[in-house]
Amino acid sequence: MNEQVTDSSSLPPDEIERRSFAIIGEELDRLRTIDPASVSSLTPETEAIVKRVIHTTADFDYARNLYFSPGAVVAGLDAFRNGAPVVTDTTMALSGINKQAAGKLGVEAHCLIADREVRESAAAAGTTRSRAAVDVAAERWPDAVYVIGNAPTALLRIRELIRDGRLTPRLVVGVPVGFVNVVESKDALIGRETTCIVARGRKGGSNVAAAIVNAFLYTLTR
Amino acid sequence: MNEQVTDSSSLPPDEIERRSFAIIGEELDRLRTIDPASVSSLTPETEAIVKRVIHTTADFDYARNLYFSPGAVVAGLDAFRNGAPVVTDTTMALSGINKQAAGKLGVEAHCLIADREVRESAAAAGTTRSRAAVDVAAERWPDAVYVIGNAPTALLRIRELIRDGRLTPRLVVGVPVGFVNVVESKDALIGRETTCIVARGRKGGSNVAAAIVNAFLYTLTR
Repeated sequence: MNEQVTDSSSLPPDEIERRSFAIIGEELDRLRTIDPASVSSLTPETEAIVKRVIHTTADFDYARNLYFSPGAVVAGLDAFRNGAPVVTDTTMALSGINKQAAGKLGVEAHCLIADREVRESAAAAGTTRSRAAVDVAAERWPDAVYVIGNAPTALLRIRELIRDGRLTPRLVVGVPVGFVNVVESKDALIGRETTCIVARGRKGGSNVAAAIVNAFLYTLTR
Repeated sequence: MNEQVTDSSSLPPDEIERRSFAIIGEELDRLRTIDPASVSSLTPETEAIVKRVIHTTADFDYARNLYFSPGAVVAGLDAFRNGAPVVTDTTMALSGINKQAAGKLGVEAHCLIADREVRESAAAAGTTRSRAAVDVAAERWPDAVYVIGNAPTALLRIRELIRDGRLTPRLVVGVPVGFVNVVESKDALIGRETTCIVARGRKGGSNVAAAIVNAFLYTLTR
């Protein structure tokens, strides 16, 4: 164990975060010099979100993967400033949302995947719990922020309910990860009227989903 | 929404997983042809774990990032087959572990970050809860599988306790993500006597930590 490890291991968490974001900023500057397209997701408006996702993944692909529909960041800030609820598709994304920051804004986070009504409704309809959870959430919180880090079926169902006028989300965070049906489920959101943040391509995940929510919460509370 | 989306969105989850792993296998074969070093983590022994991590992240860097100490996979399988407990550093990693599969093996998963004893002990010692959680866990479950997806201080503390003979983990999964102190905390595990699986470099995370545990659980229960 060298000197440097001992030194920085005693740093307080906020100083570690400050240094981490400084490193991320430097690397983004370097990437911009080499290839501006590699940081195409990055604008003054989106910066806090893009950097937070890179902080969570150490993956600079997100500097060009993330798609923001026009006004998505403002919509998210408005929603959370007014205490809009969050609905996630997995308990893992729910678990990653900073409850202290959410609490300061009166934001409640929900995941219905283990909800009794969802289980019964999925069994009765012969559908997945991810899909049924969106249906139940749409009735309880039609104008929540919907955050999908895992289930493309949930994202596709959100699109259907929006189309049918049964869901009017303030913002959709569409960042499921995977190899089957995932890219299509995300591409289906892009370029439509839905206010959304999407991780294009295969990458994403519950950690990315939670990081995007936390980026909004921290911008508003710190 | 095109035909293909509608079609594969109705696939059962196990079929989606089967197809996903087939795609991952094909891509790994392709990468091996282009550059064998890009899949250097992949052996018949480690395959289930490497593929599961790629399934969780859609990031093929893990085909060369993951380090397995000699006998790490066998040690993990032995541990979980005998119902060894798991200790995680975050509730998010805990949340990502498949409790049904764990339950079949009698494996209990714990995260002490919000434990009262940990909070009191961290406050009294002026240290982080991540570090104090390792100390408390070491007393309760000295030979558990320790799984760190976030906190390098937890990983450094695990090394110290092993050195001092106060912790004898069956396996250490060391996959914190980040930019400060993270690479050093992981490098400090590699090439020593500790039985470990480590994600070299900056990448990792609670999702990767849970995926590695799940890969073991699924190998033993499916």
